Amino acid sequence: MNNLLNSINKTLLMGPGPSSVSPEVYTALHKPTIGHLDPKFLKIMDHIKIMLRTLLKTDNELTLPISGTGSAAMEACFVNLIEPPDSILIIENGYFGLRMIDMATRLNENVDTMKFEWGKVIDINMINDKLKQKKYNIVAVVHAETSTGVLNPIAEIAKLIPDDTLFIVDAVTSFGTVDINVDKWNIDAIYSCSQKGLSCPPGASPISFSDRAIYKLKNRKSKVPNWYLDLSMIINYWGGNSRVYHHTAPINMMYALYQGLCNVIEEGHDNVISRHLEAHKNLKLKLDALGISFLVDEKYRIPSLNSVIIPEGINDLVVRSTLLNDYNIEIGGGLGPLAGKIWRIGLMGHTARKENIDKLISALSIIL
Amino acid sequence: MNNLLNSINKTLLMGPGPSSVSPEVYTALHKPTIGHLDPKFLKIMDHIKIMLRTLLKTDNELTLPISGTGSAAMEACFVNLIEPPDSILIIENGYFGLRMIDMATRLNENVDTMKFEWGKVIDINMINDKLKQKKYNIVAVVHAETSTGVLNPIAEIAKLIPDDTLFIVDAVTSFGTVDINVDKWNIDAIYSCSQKGLSCPPGASPISFSDRAIYKLKNRKSKVPNWYLDLSMIINYWGGNSRVYHHTAPINMMYALYQGLCNVIEEGHDNVISRHLEAHKNLKLKLDALGISFLVDEKYRIPSLNSVIIPEGINDLVVRSTLLNDYNIEIGGGLGPLAGKIWRIGLMGHTARKENIDKLISALSIIL
Repeated sequence: MNNLLNSINKTLLMGPGPSSVSPEVYTALHKPTIGHLDPKFLKIMDHIKIMLRTLLKTDNELTLPISGTGSAAMEACFVNLIEPPDSILIIENGYFGLRMIDMATRLNENVDTMKFEWGKVIDINMINDKLKQKKYNIVAVVHAETSTGVLNPIAEIAKLIPDDTLFIVDAVTSFGTVDINVDKWNIDAIYSCSQKGLSCPPGASPISFSDRAIYKLKNRKSKVPNWYLDLSMIINYWGGNSRVYHHTAPINMMYALYQGLCNVIEEGHDNVISRHLEAHKNLKLKLDALGISFLVDEKYRIPSLNSVIIPEGINDLVVRSTLLNDYNIEIGGGLGPLAGKIWRIGLMGHTARKENIDKLISALSIIL
Repeated sequence: MNNLLNSINKTLLMGPGPSSVSPEVYTALHKPTIGHLDPKFLKIMDHIKIMLRTLLKTDNELTLPISGTGSAAMEACFVNLIEPPDSILIIENGYFGLRMIDMATRLNENVDTMKFEWGKVIDINMINDKLKQKKYNIVAVVHAETSTGVLNPIAEIAKLIPDDTLFIVDAVTSFGTVDINVDKWNIDAIYSCSQKGLSCPPGASPISFSDRAIYKLKNRKSKVPNWYLDLSMIINYWGGNSRVYHHTAPINMMYALYQGLCNVIEEGHDNVISRHLEAHKNLKLKLDALGISFLVDEKYRIPSLNSVIIPEGINDLVVRSTLLNDYNIEIGGGLGPLAGKIWRIGLMGHTARKENIDKLISALSIIL
């Protein structure tokens, strides 16, 4: 039988994720698998927690990776914290805001939504008004909307959230690429993924819960309606002395995550964030020269996810498949109403380097 | 910073899983990460589905891996197929039967249970009586109970299940180590994991649904109350032509699973099953010589998971940590009421070889 894995070439991943995996992470990934209760593995788990807290700027005890991809971490936040008849507000200006609504409405009928145009930033005054009109148990919003390239102003929204309302933030694309300050911003639940800022393969996804969120979790009247993501049990495996087995952790993915976090800390968190911003500016300059413009206003752009308007007369699919087949470069297309209208150029983690931008621009120049 | 991954040694994994990963799977695991919509990756997904169908002996179209560990696959079966007010029967004779009950009762109030002694096989006559007394929408049972070492008679139970009752089977420890015939046994939903018979790291877990199960899924009145595991959406990414993005698949884990499946098919499925049986017999002979006896009656033993009684006067933890620290061999302890009373010796996948048994017996002889 012909082994299909032999056809896998190194691809420069400049889409919305996964990003290109760093060499150190590949090395970590195929370290020998050991048991999920092996003391050496428990020590790695402890250090993953410590590094996550450092990078998220939080003292939250409940800070750990979920054994799934980013959407599992999103669901972990909703399913542990929502208990009907909660009133929930979801602020939506993109595909992943819609995903939040879909998840939350499966758990609870009382979900209000505030919808803003895709590609535009959310309107802080309208949110302020809404929060004055009605009391919510939970407010949720996406920080960096991967579908549009908009960076929502979490620090400003945070100031509007009442003390007795839990604030859930999606940091899937922002974590490790822009600054996040969980404790200063009073975020109660935040989640991300491994395959963007951390440059690991997908499969292990950080979350962090504040003490207020833990209080709500521990005082639920009903069990969490999701066994695999039930944090009231998972914390007994990830913390304390007893280390009660819950499910078998994805060992090698945790090695990768450990290494991805080490990489950021060794380079310096601030340096990593600056590198993303520099890469973004560099890309912008070169796209300007090609006459390609951005979808999003300059001050609301995510440095790590650049949504650009496909020039008129250009065939989206032909360009992307030529990039992939002839140059081994992946960029992303648009989602939903933006399909065929934008490209999403990721500069995340290990990908966010000048030489990668040069490769993409050189290829694009020839193709266009 | 001292990198903890440097302290990871190759460990002979002879516990209840993970099993020792084969060299080919390690090679697969660190192949370059590509995009989850890359045509090369889609082709690997297709071949994973084909190989899973071959090994499960089924034509089920919905046969694919869940992006999580075995418990996520267990939950995928329950959460997609249960819709209140279903009547459900769970047959339990071990820890993973209890897990089924915990998951199912989170989704539905009407869960009946039949409980049998841990370490004993379930009583087929009692199940027959129960199924004649009451009509169930779903009956669920564990094939190989990893907590006790009992292999339940799925083929016999299957004959008792009425045509309009869905039959869910846990094949976490049995898949790839003993024969499973999904179509012949009329199983409606079956799940397993990657880290036992297939000798991959944990993190991707096969499931298969019959047409009757798909009918139930497609005719639900309510949405599946779990977004991440909602198979009505996941099938649009794993099948058909549109390949609608659902969540980012754990790419490298899928490479590993692909290779693990290739390994079984190249060795020959029947040869793999025979190798497990031979290893089991070999272990039994050598344990007999050491005066160590089995918990389970000979005819109900799982070849790949040998539960043996800890000899009187022997300290469970001391033996297991000596094996791990001095010999790099992991075996498992007991769970729940069997904690401190049994060891669980896994002979799964790549681990199930005479030379590994010799290493364990040699070490045990010295320690005891």
